[in-house]
Amino acid sequence: MSEPIYIHRYTLHSRRGLNSRSDRTAHEGLLILINGGVGCIHPWEVLGDPSLDEVLDDLKNRRLFRPLVRAAVKCAMVDGAARRAGVSLFDGVRVPRSHATIVGGRDKIDEALTAGFDVVKMKAGRDAPAELQLMHEVHADHPELRWRLDFNNVLGGGELREFVKSMGESLRSKIDFLEDPCRTDDPAWQGIREVYGVPLAIDRDVPIAGNQFRYAVIKPALDDVTAVCAKAMLEGWRLVLTSYMDHPIGQCYAAWCAGKVEKRFYGLLDPVAGLMTHGLFEPNAFIDRMGPVQPEWRSPVGTGLGFDDLIDELNWEMLR
Amino acid sequence: MSEPIYIHRYTLHSRRGLNSRSDRTAHEGLLILINGGVGCIHPWEVLGDPSLDEVLDDLKNRRLFRPLVRAAVKCAMVDGAARRAGVSLFDGVRVPRSHATIVGGRDKIDEALTAGFDVVKMKAGRDAPAELQLMHEVHADHPELRWRLDFNNVLGGGELREFVKSMGESLRSKIDFLEDPCRTDDPAWQGIREVYGVPLAIDRDVPIAGNQFRYAVIKPALDDVTAVCAKAMLEGWRLVLTSYMDHPIGQCYAAWCAGKVEKRFYGLLDPVAGLMTHGLFEPNAFIDRMGPVQPEWRSPVGTGLGFDDLIDELNWEMLR
Repeated sequence: MSEPIYIHRYTLHSRRGLNSRSDRTAHEGLLILINGGVGCIHPWEVLGDPSLDEVLDDLKNRRLFRPLVRAAVKCAMVDGAARRAGVSLFDGVRVPRSHATIVGGRDKIDEALTAGFDVVKMKAGRDAPAELQLMHEVHADHPELRWRLDFNNVLGGGELREFVKSMGESLRSKIDFLEDPCRTDDPAWQGIREVYGVPLAIDRDVPIAGNQFRYAVIKPALDDVTAVCAKAMLEGWRLVLTSYMDHPIGQCYAAWCAGKVEKRFYGLLDPVAGLMTHGLFEPNAFIDRMGPVQPEWRSPVGTGLGFDDLIDELNWEMLR
Repeated sequence: MSEPIYIHRYTLHSRRGLNSRSDRTAHEGLLILINGGVGCIHPWEVLGDPSLDEVLDDLKNRRLFRPLVRAAVKCAMVDGAARRAGVSLFDGVRVPRSHATIVGGRDKIDEALTAGFDVVKMKAGRDAPAELQLMHEVHADHPELRWRLDFNNVLGGGELREFVKSMGESLRSKIDFLEDPCRTDDPAWQGIREVYGVPLAIDRDVPIAGNQFRYAVIKPALDDVTAVCAKAMLEGWRLVLTSYMDHPIGQCYAAWCAGKVEKRFYGLLDPVAGLMTHGLFEPNAFIDRMGPVQPEWRSPVGTGLGFDDLIDELNWEMLR
């Protein structure tokens, strides 16, 4: 007998576009409920994810080929088991602290500093002069602040080198990594391990990346976490575990995975994760429950991944 | 920095051919040692696995595309973490009991009965009249014994029906399942859920199988365990977790996975697994350590998956 799947469609609203490749501010996703457990599917079509219709078709046909669908069903399974046992998934799990995910300008960085963050991550490459000016100004005022720059492969190799060179030595020494600086299949980048001493991080295409990267960004919403850990062990990567800028259910699943990886495979995970993304969206009942945006993770109360009462109150539609 | 990989080639010797498709009795495989943890790669080329040379080439290039390689590196990672912590992976893990894996005739079934097994699994379909006669004889003497029959898709649909019909009602009621009765892409089998009331089990092609099967055989040597569990939850399958007729290291990894799945996803796993396969091979130091072939699992002593001293004593060659 097939297990019924229930769905709840949601829309998160961001104040700005969240991606170098799009200015969209309404972000549609899906919560799934299977055998008492919930999961979140939040496709970023602009980054190559399937559409919600494709995802729904997969679920109807119990197809788990697509990483996004497979990961959400895994989440629902793990969550459901804990809810049935009446325990929180976060019992005995220590979730690492996070960098601040900056979407915006100086005001957002100042907010992050006030909240206690000592590492910020921001998109870079779309408006290099403005970004460099912002970074120089903030660096002058807060020389200890560390930076993680995500280029989404928007720059060519020459432009990227110019960007990093323009930082100057003092700011450069505060850059943790350059994420997705180049397409992994770009021959001009083969074997290049750093740019002016700054190491590289890989985000998409993790399974085919090699040891030119010192960091890999791992997203439980998409990745087979244990397999990426195995690859990281072989390649000598440090893993930065991040949420998928998705619904708090997905965010909490990422946080739980981070805690589990830290516990089971101590040393693979960078001590600073990227889990605090709910502040990018307008408040709703789930987001309110996540509390203030701060470096330290705060697990929601309740069984499984939490939110027991809110999940009960949602409208769930049986998928047919 | 890439992590070095050490390898140790082994050969296990079986008294008979272990597969419906081959009479080979020497079985070559590979132990890998990475960051203090061991894993086992035991390719069954006759079942479509890559050759040892292909596996070695993958390891040299840190490629984890092939399920067999990926699973072994995951095993080494899990094992290494436990060894470094100085703990056994079996601490707090209850491994389910097993059926007897029968290769041979009445003498092997009698051995299994004497050892206390109440479920036997055997290959079927290569010599139907002899197999049916054997089953009828044993069933007459031991009417409570339950059977699991693995056809490896060697019969056509008509022959399979004839086989099951010939069992008669009493014996049929003792059949747990018919494993791999048919190719999943055989249109004549679409939607068929049982043969004369006997349910079906799927072994290969698990990710694309649907809810016509009531059981699925899951092999941690090959499968992404959590993903198969998720699929099983959706399809309503019961999972029979089995070793890969491989080295005791692989066998112990399968046993550990069985215990973890039982603990985390209670209810997915059939209470009778298929982990007792070391008796199919001529003794060696590892196999001796596994103890007698019996229904109840006995975890080896030591850290990680055990065998600490034997692993130290092996010749390990650094892969270059």
